[in-house]
Amino acid sequence: MYYIGIDVGGMSIKGGIVDENGNIIIKDSVVTNPTQPSDDNVKDIAGLVQKLLCDGGIDEKEIVGMGMGVPGTVDPDTAKIFYTCNIYFRDYDFRKEFKKYFDFPVYIGNDADCAVIGEAVFGDMKGVQNAVIVTLGTGVGTGTLVNGKLISGFKGAGGEGGHTVIRMGGEKCGCGRRGCWEAYASATALIRDTKRAMEKHPESLMHEIAKKEGKVSGRTAFDAMRAGDKTAKTLVSRYIKYVGEGLVNIGNYIRPEIIFMGGGVSNEGDWFIKRLQAYVTRYSYGGRRNPYIKVMKATLRGEAGILGAAALVAKTA
Amino acid sequence: MYYIGIDVGGMSIKGGIVDENGNIIIKDSVVTNPTQPSDDNVKDIAGLVQKLLCDGGIDEKEIVGMGMGVPGTVDPDTAKIFYTCNIYFRDYDFRKEFKKYFDFPVYIGNDADCAVIGEAVFGDMKGVQNAVIVTLGTGVGTGTLVNGKLISGFKGAGGEGGHTVIRMGGEKCGCGRRGCWEAYASATALIRDTKRAMEKHPESLMHEIAKKEGKVSGRTAFDAMRAGDKTAKTLVSRYIKYVGEGLVNIGNYIRPEIIFMGGGVSNEGDWFIKRLQAYVTRYSYGGRRNPYIKVMKATLRGEAGILGAAALVAKTA
Repeated sequence: MYYIGIDVGGMSIKGGIVDENGNIIIKDSVVTNPTQPSDDNVKDIAGLVQKLLCDGGIDEKEIVGMGMGVPGTVDPDTAKIFYTCNIYFRDYDFRKEFKKYFDFPVYIGNDADCAVIGEAVFGDMKGVQNAVIVTLGTGVGTGTLVNGKLISGFKGAGGEGGHTVIRMGGEKCGCGRRGCWEAYASATALIRDTKRAMEKHPESLMHEIAKKEGKVSGRTAFDAMRAGDKTAKTLVSRYIKYVGEGLVNIGNYIRPEIIFMGGGVSNEGDWFIKRLQAYVTRYSYGGRRNPYIKVMKATLRGEAGILGAAALVAKTA
Repeated sequence: MYYIGIDVGGMSIKGGIVDENGNIIIKDSVVTNPTQPSDDNVKDIAGLVQKLLCDGGIDEKEIVGMGMGVPGTVDPDTAKIFYTCNIYFRDYDFRKEFKKYFDFPVYIGNDADCAVIGEAVFGDMKGVQNAVIVTLGTGVGTGTLVNGKLISGFKGAGGEGGHTVIRMGGEKCGCGRRGCWEAYASATALIRDTKRAMEKHPESLMHEIAKKEGKVSGRTAFDAMRAGDKTAKTLVSRYIKYVGEGLVNIGNYIRPEIIFMGGGVSNEGDWFIKRLQAYVTRYSYGGRRNPYIKVMKATLRGEAGILGAAALVAKTA
């Protein structure tokens, strides 16, 4: 038996057929069309699924179900999509429309929720019951598993850990509040802070690095720090504090066994993860009296989005 | 059939026998002895239970189980108490020792966890599946129910919502971090801020009120505000912002249907709750697109501690 995993992204919709051990048998993608009506998006996804089945030589009857990760708000019970970014779904009954094409069950989840389920089902720590994934990318995403179950909130509207304030009255956040974790710990925030530091420090190596790269990125400060730049070192240390502060908040409230770090910034290496681990261990409530929270890099490589979506089926079906 | 509820507090251990509708049939208490060995604490509690059964004329066989709320960290599965304040239990197997006295099942929970379960089982909103209780007292306590289940964290060490930072680098907190919600939203924090405001404003009515009361309390600023004092008005508005900020954080991450407000400060009246509701509604992520979070005063009156502990049995047994 197989699972289908669909990963809806801003640029493309990726799909794959996954076996019970988490091996991707076949994968493909279609370009995301951000302006077309919702029904056409479903048609595109059904077309992608049809192609996967054909090319993989797999019969529809061998499919346990399809999981889909979307960047937005979904009711996990009804699979109704309330809202998505970059692709148009508003209060949309995806299951009903998709039934016109295929008969297997469909499960939909927020992409961060899929990511943590992917780790729990197919990752190196598979079987973990209490875990949080934190993705440091354009925003800060969080997916939370408690006693093996997703915490997706009333009608799926929870899990917005990036939009918890760590500095009241601080940096403006896209959500309308000030001082959200996302406004400090996302790659977007890091780039903003890198630009600010560069303005203040014309002597910093970051100027040279950004020039070579053609832009200031989430890596600029890390690269400059590794090359010995003092301004970058200070900047990265402060960034780690921002990330760490939110991790300790989650740790104190939820007390997971593991916090997985995902998203582009988490590729900065073991050193980065170790610093976060040290911060969490030092500042978590109750110190050594309370159980240790392990901080580690997310373990699913490559098509984590497809695997996470497929895992949603494995976990729910 | 009946439940026994035991509420372990710093001053006294309260106990009651509760029927299936949440009526307390009989109640009593013993003085807390903070220095005696753990086994003697169990003996005291067993004595209290014996007295309740005798005085109530209830047979041990009519007891479904005993629930106990403690101010500390408990593993909900094993009922092992890792740590408590004000009464001595450290890595203690309460169930094993208590079995020497009585044979019915024993469930132990953190007191804030019991409070939210009490609301879900015996409160005005009974049956609620997704709810958080926030208690504004000496500290800030949180108890969280998701899909009808407690989020007590790995080995019961979670639920410390009071120790999530809302202002990085801010006021010192007893837990070792700076800027915790508790360091701004607890009655203790309010009293500290009231004293600071009084120092700066010798003309404030708060001086007179505190003199009459014999001390500065969590009520001083509220009373002065109601009497028209401007300094107090500013202070209370800021305090509401502090409380609200943490509520929105919880709302965005967990997205409960209801946030119950408990603890002494929550007795400041409907007006206070309404202001918190307005804050949460205004700043919650996704605005009107996401489901509304209701903020209301905790509904269990009187012996909420006994009822919450008894509800732990009703919920788990």
